[in-house]
Amino acid sequence: MLSLLDLLRRMDAGTLPPDGALALCREAIAAREPEVEALVHLDETARPGAAGGPLAGIPLGVKDIIDVAGLPTRMGSPLYEGNLPRADAAIVAMARRAGAIPLAKTTTTPFAYLDPTRTRNPAVPDCTPGGSSSGSAAAVAAGMLPLALGTQTGGSVIRPAAYCGVAAIKPSARLLPTVGVKCFSWTLDTVGLFAASVQDVAHALAALARRPELALPEGDPLTNHAGIRLGILHQDFAGDPEPEAAAALDEAARAAERAGARLVALESPPLLADAWRLHGIIQNFEAAQALAWEWDAHRDALPPELRGLLDEAQSVDAALYDDARRIVHHAREAARGIFAEVDAILTFAAPGPAPRGYASTGSSRFNRLWTLLGDPCVAVPGLESADGRPVGVQTISRFGRDEKALAAGAFVAAAIAARR
Amino acid sequence: MLSLLDLLRRMDAGTLPPDGALALCREAIAAREPEVEALVHLDETARPGAAGGPLAGIPLGVKDIIDVAGLPTRMGSPLYEGNLPRADAAIVAMARRAGAIPLAKTTTTPFAYLDPTRTRNPAVPDCTPGGSSSGSAAAVAAGMLPLALGTQTGGSVIRPAAYCGVAAIKPSARLLPTVGVKCFSWTLDTVGLFAASVQDVAHALAALARRPELALPEGDPLTNHAGIRLGILHQDFAGDPEPEAAAALDEAARAAERAGARLVALESPPLLADAWRLHGIIQNFEAAQALAWEWDAHRDALPPELRGLLDEAQSVDAALYDDARRIVHHAREAARGIFAEVDAILTFAAPGPAPRGYASTGSSRFNRLWTLLGDPCVAVPGLESADGRPVGVQTISRFGRDEKALAAGAFVAAAIAARR
Repeated sequence: MLSLLDLLRRMDAGTLPPDGALALCREAIAAREPEVEALVHLDETARPGAAGGPLAGIPLGVKDIIDVAGLPTRMGSPLYEGNLPRADAAIVAMARRAGAIPLAKTTTTPFAYLDPTRTRNPAVPDCTPGGSSSGSAAAVAAGMLPLALGTQTGGSVIRPAAYCGVAAIKPSARLLPTVGVKCFSWTLDTVGLFAASVQDVAHALAALARRPELALPEGDPLTNHAGIRLGILHQDFAGDPEPEAAAALDEAARAAERAGARLVALESPPLLADAWRLHGIIQNFEAAQALAWEWDAHRDALPPELRGLLDEAQSVDAALYDDARRIVHHAREAARGIFAEVDAILTFAAPGPAPRGYASTGSSRFNRLWTLLGDPCVAVPGLESADGRPVGVQTISRFGRDEKALAAGAFVAAAIAARR
Repeated sequence: MLSLLDLLRRMDAGTLPPDGALALCREAIAAREPEVEALVHLDETARPGAAGGPLAGIPLGVKDIIDVAGLPTRMGSPLYEGNLPRADAAIVAMARRAGAIPLAKTTTTPFAYLDPTRTRNPAVPDCTPGGSSSGSAAAVAAGMLPLALGTQTGGSVIRPAAYCGVAAIKPSARLLPTVGVKCFSWTLDTVGLFAASVQDVAHALAALARRPELALPEGDPLTNHAGIRLGILHQDFAGDPEPEAAAALDEAARAAERAGARLVALESPPLLADAWRLHGIIQNFEAAQALAWEWDAHRDALPPELRGLLDEAQSVDAALYDDARRIVHHAREAARGIFAEVDAILTFAAPGPAPRGYASTGSSRFNRLWTLLGDPCVAVPGLESADGRPVGVQTISRFGRDEKALAAGAFVAAAIAARR
């Protein structure tokens, strides 16, 4: 994989020219893309800007539900064939300000729902890369891009990161703007980032949000965050994990403890289980409105999973939605309680390793609650199942404390690496 | 003015054909538009749908920052010349579902900020119609349309309604979706409605939101809502009103009291004054991101008020924004207190009647707090200054209780009418 911090250091030191990262990406794309199929458009004219910035010269992948001025934005659907947005999405304009180079649009499941793309998982043959940000996760995993934008409404950032073995963050709700991003659910949609390591992700988030305090300190995370308190949470309300995910969480927790973390076994308050069950009501009520034109005018052109969801979503009652919002409001308060005694939660990033085949992009059941609560989640790579498939874990902190989820993620990743 | 309830009754009774409302609008537009200049595009091909619905046959004006599939959407700016959205905004698709006919795009100040349009106030010569939803307010006031969509980020629905002498609602935050509406501030932007009467507005809101309970009962509001408790609030934190606005609020309150309302003098808690002051920080921090492409790539093409705001907005600190959000979160809780003993607040809709000339669209200082809190506001027409300019008042209820603000608005309007 291409580490953006490594590329920045080399460009800064002059051992890589200012367009060197771009050249490396173009080479890797030429070599890997025919097999991975993570991209829907490559901007042949992309060049580094002159202005510098904390991401100067870093090529960026942009999920194809996010507008880039003058590049096609197709939402993974023929309904948007030939759609050329006039303006950059806010997050893309902010990436340009930071010096990043929007180089490629990456595959998305249609409208970021469950119908799969043709993208392959670069880390394991014949497995889904996950979804809906399939192309962004796969492009980073294949070493074609050092940074890519995705979105999460259920688990569409953390799950594909876990399946492909890369790092990612779904930040606090609205830390990164969704203006110019095709909407599925305005309460849930969250822009996230994929990169090779948790440090890379933290640097990019700090640069894009212009919040320097989010970058991780240099040096060994095991020293920097010594004594970190991690709450182990099994999310029982979301069902049982597969054995590989259970083993990975145990292994991550043991490695973290050996590296000096303090572990706390957490129980989730009943209100969180209630909120978890309400994710679908909020998502579906809003999707029926957000995609009203697509369903009214082009229902037959929608893929089966999405069409089925929207058919069902038409009948979600407003009173049910209002009640769900009230309960979630209280659950957000209740969630603060479980963060009171820990710096971050450590839990499953997905039910297991990437499912075999391409029929399904996997399940978001261990991600949904945190998207709904708006709490920041970091996908931590480094573990594998016995048959060599990546199995991610995730660290989660309370809303607005993204630096804690990142510190915990970096600590756990370093502890996993040190265990060898 | 064209009352949508009256038009619906006549079409329902067969005294007006199904395309009769459309024909009336086309006639009125031909007669009034050359002088008022409220429209930027008229859809010559618009026809009533076959499906019926609670707004069947009702022509609709759509503020030109709201997408209509296949019609130009120009944001009041040459930057979006020739921009043809592929999809309807969610609210437009929902209007079509209800049977409404998107007939015209209405003028907007550029990107819905303060730089004026050329639209004239149909109610008073040589006065601004207010902004930013200038065309929607003016088109309803001129009798060219029975219903029009606007948006409010500061006071852009209630203020032009007050200046033009029409009814309007800025509903609870996110009651109507903003998907497909050009974003200025994702926390503040709210879709609202203009119509001839409060009853018309209530019927349209109920139909668009598919919440039948929001429609007002038939019959006399003075009977239906007898004994309603109105809190008189002067919003001292927002400065003094002009004498005409002060007189109008007194007159509305006296008329309501004579009609049987119970009046309660309210004091606003200090936290509301704090929140009022923070509106600009939240708006500007978000606008700098939402309009990042426009400012980065086309700063010189932006009009002076907007360019000045965005120049200033670049330096709003993230920590200041985070603090503002926290304080506003508490202010939302505090606002519930003032609603505890009343059904609705009655207060100024604008500092005074429409300012003379076209240099300014007026001030949102009596509107900002409620946009920020997300509380529903209803513009109540019917009063005039001594020199014949409309002076609106507004009724406000707590978040999620739009039916109370509407009931109070209908009561006050009826009390004003009964006073003659």
